[in-house]
Amino acid sequence: MSDSLARSITGIRGTTRAQLEQLLTDAKRYAEGGDVRSVGDGRVATLLFAEDSTRTRCSFEMACHKLGIRPIVLGKSGSSMSKGETLLDTARLLEVIGSDVLVLRHSENGAADMLANTLRIPVLNAGDGTNEHPTQALLDAYTLQQAWGAFDGRTLAIVGDVLHSRVARSTAMALETLGATVRLCGPPSLCSAAPEGVKARCYHDIEEATEGVDAVIMLRIQRERMASSVSPDPDQYRTAYGMTAARAQRLPEHAVILHPAPMNRGVEIDSAVADGPRSRIFDQMKNGVWVRMSCLAHALAR
Amino acid sequence: MSDSLARSITGIRGTTRAQLEQLLTDAKRYAEGGDVRSVGDGRVATLLFAEDSTRTRCSFEMACHKLGIRPIVLGKSGSSMSKGETLLDTARLLEVIGSDVLVLRHSENGAADMLANTLRIPVLNAGDGTNEHPTQALLDAYTLQQAWGAFDGRTLAIVGDVLHSRVARSTAMALETLGATVRLCGPPSLCSAAPEGVKARCYHDIEEATEGVDAVIMLRIQRERMASSVSPDPDQYRTAYGMTAARAQRLPEHAVILHPAPMNRGVEIDSAVADGPRSRIFDQMKNGVWVRMSCLAHALAR
Amino acid sequence: MSDSLARSITGIRGTTRAQLEQLLTDAKRYAEGGDVRSVGDGRVATLLFAEDSTRTRCSFEMACHKLGIRPIVLGKSGSSMSKGETLLDTARLLEVIGSDVLVLRHSENGAADMLANTLRIPVLNAGDGTNEHPTQALLDAYTLQQAWGAFDGRTLAIVGDVLHSRVARSTAMALETLGATVRLCGPPSLCSAAPEGVKARCYHDIEEATEGVDAVIMLRIQRERMASSVSPDPDQYRTAYGMTAARAQRLPEHAVILHPAPMNRGVEIDSAVADGPRSRIFDQMKNGVWVRMSCLAHALAR
Repeated sequence: MSDSLARSITGIRGTTRAQLEQLLTDAKRYAEGGDVRSVGDGRVATLLFAEDSTRTRCSFEMACHKLGIRPIVLGKSGSSMSKGETLLDTARLLEVIGSDVLVLRHSENGAADMLANTLRIPVLNAGDGTNEHPTQALLDAYTLQQAWGAFDGRTLAIVGDVLHSRVARSTAMALETLGATVRLCGPPSLCSAAPEGVKARCYHDIEEATEGVDAVIMLRIQRERMASSVSPDPDQYRTAYGMTAARAQRLPEHAVILHPAPMNRGVEIDSAVADGPRSRIFDQMKNGVWVRMSCLAHALAR
Repeated sequence: MSDSLARSITGIRGTTRAQLEQLLTDAKRYAEGGDVRSVGDGRVATLLFAEDSTRTRCSFEMACHKLGIRPIVLGKSGSSMSKGETLLDTARLLEVIGSDVLVLRHSENGAADMLANTLRIPVLNAGDGTNEHPTQALLDAYTLQQAWGAFDGRTLAIVGDVLHSRVARSTAMALETLGATVRLCGPPSLCSAAPEGVKARCYHDIEEATEGVDAVIMLRIQRERMASSVSPDPDQYRTAYGMTAARAQRLPEHAVILHPAPMNRGVEIDSAVADGPRSRIFDQMKNGVWVRMSCLAHALAR
Repeated sequence: MSDSLARSITGIRGTTRAQLEQLLTDAKRYAEGGDVRSVGDGRVATLLFAEDSTRTRCSFEMACHKLGIRPIVLGKSGSSMSKGETLLDTARLLEVIGSDVLVLRHSENGAADMLANTLRIPVLNAGDGTNEHPTQALLDAYTLQQAWGAFDGRTLAIVGDVLHSRVARSTAMALETLGATVRLCGPPSLCSAAPEGVKARCYHDIEEATEGVDAVIMLRIQRERMASSVSPDPDQYRTAYGMTAARAQRLPEHAVILHPAPMNRGVEIDSAVADGPRSRIFDQMKNGVWVRMSCLAHALAR
């Protein structure tokens, strides 16, 4: 494995517990105001977001600013990919002009791996198709560590559109690697089997799946990734799988609720829950900056 | 009133003459090369422009650069609002990831107030629907102060689409608060009564409205905000309400002409006027940077 | 000629050999890590890209970062040009708010010259219609100088859609000014005569045009600039004018191959050639940053 490949983070799959713990430890150091001076030092990160994103893009951009890295941001529109250039040619361009690290969001599974295996600069995967979203998994783990202290013996339920969710996959793998037990839950059409690399069992009954858990992650209904024939009716979905106020109340008293956002309020999660005392949703966003600083610093370590 | 709310600037309404004068004084200090070192200091401003804008966005971005603040710019496209996220959730995200101030342009009246009342970081309104555009009002006031010296006893006519113009409303309130007299003028369908908070009388005859004035602000015909049935024919509009070269010549010799831009040259204003000796239109743009530096520094004051 | 006009670079036409050599020498100094501290110094470059571009925009943005210049980037969407504002009014705005230099990409021939003749700040042309693309010409020259050592006595063939290509025109003029011989080649409909200012002869047979050359530049088939009736069939085009692996092998052993990119792989150039040992295509991209640093420093010289 080349040095730049070792400094890439394209997925949770294949990472060890020690590696994940190191990234979380470094993130905590940044959260506590740890020194960042040696990281930026005139370096440039290119953020290539070939899919819409507010959260992840802004979070990475903020992480760059906090580390003193200068970001170049490239969206789908305004880029030569609209002239038919391949992703690889665009990425090579970004490499040869002097980007020190490439952050990629792309609709195709494996896009980040392909680039990490080809380029000489490290690649951070900011979400590729339905494959992986490792920085989301890390911020989920960070947030759960805040709530739990330790992972061993803890149980997490991930509820919703598991089939289309790179978050479900990456987060489940990360939490299992860190020592927690994961349950997956959703309608049979959206949660028939655990994604590759995940040991968790699939539940179709949310009450059963969330019984005695220490945390629940509610997934967004991603209408943009579904065929319309599969897309559930919002009211029916809420009744069957939504985290309603009533359901939240039946959870163990200490259980916390997460959501990768953006949220469809009133569909997969009630507003009273999203803004209520169990919610760690806005902590997740805040923690996202610390884990992305951690990943950028890992990528740029000399 | 919370501290962050006091540091927000969401409208001219409710501000005192002393507050406006302070912002103008600070702007003048920046125009004269006053020290900016203490303001930026690693802080980040997020510019959320949910409506198209060149002028205001670039002006705020330049003001950030001049103060050493790092800007994160978010447009309508490429953001999660296209996935149905609410404005409030997007804004909360921008707060929790560490934005020190939020600059908002939005199509809904009251959007900036709503956020200022909810977030813990200050909000600067860069234009909300047909409600307010306070930094435009401040740059208009700054430009008129340059031309006039003082506001008392001066008369300003604002001509055009008063009904759809947040500029007309904010600028009229600012100038009245600062001691000037304002007249509003436009066709009955676009200028039937003074907007809430404005004392000015409405005129339908431009010759009468501009008689003896010290300045005229020509408003842009905003086709994008009008029902097509209301939209006037450009030639007829120019004849009835445009600032033609002939009309400009009949103004008092010392009277200056402003326009918030972008201009429809040949409709509400002739090119000979826009580029002529009375025009302060390009001064307005330049002054916009100073007043926005003033507003950002106000928002970030510790 | 005003001072700011002298600091503008809107085309190769009218520049002397000494001026081109100076820009290349400065670029080399930057490539070798030469001191950049005096250039940036709080200055702001506005990049107005009214046409899609990844390569040139990112390259200029990177050049700004390396010089410590703060970039403000403006695309087509999200700008007031969508409200019907003229280019000149937008550019004047960018001048008066304090841009120290304007980098322009625009679809109209002569747009950069028009602004350079009107504004008081220098203008760098990043491509205007089918007219000029001087920084591309400079990076081509830089790359050929790396390969050749000197220009005198060398021969370059430029192959493809000469008619629609600002690259062909600017690069041919630059190379002729620097002392090389240029041949143009393409189908009669796309290469009937040398563009204005270019001495080169037009060839319609690629074998004849590339016989004994020291370098070939393959042009992109620009479908977005062609009427569909003119657009060639990709397979027929490749057979007649593409740089296939077989053709590349018949070139003189030392001959190098360039392409301004983005490439249509398998149409005007085979992948085996683009990624093969003769290719200088990724060097071109890298060198683009050095020549753009050189042009920005020229524009901002006091």
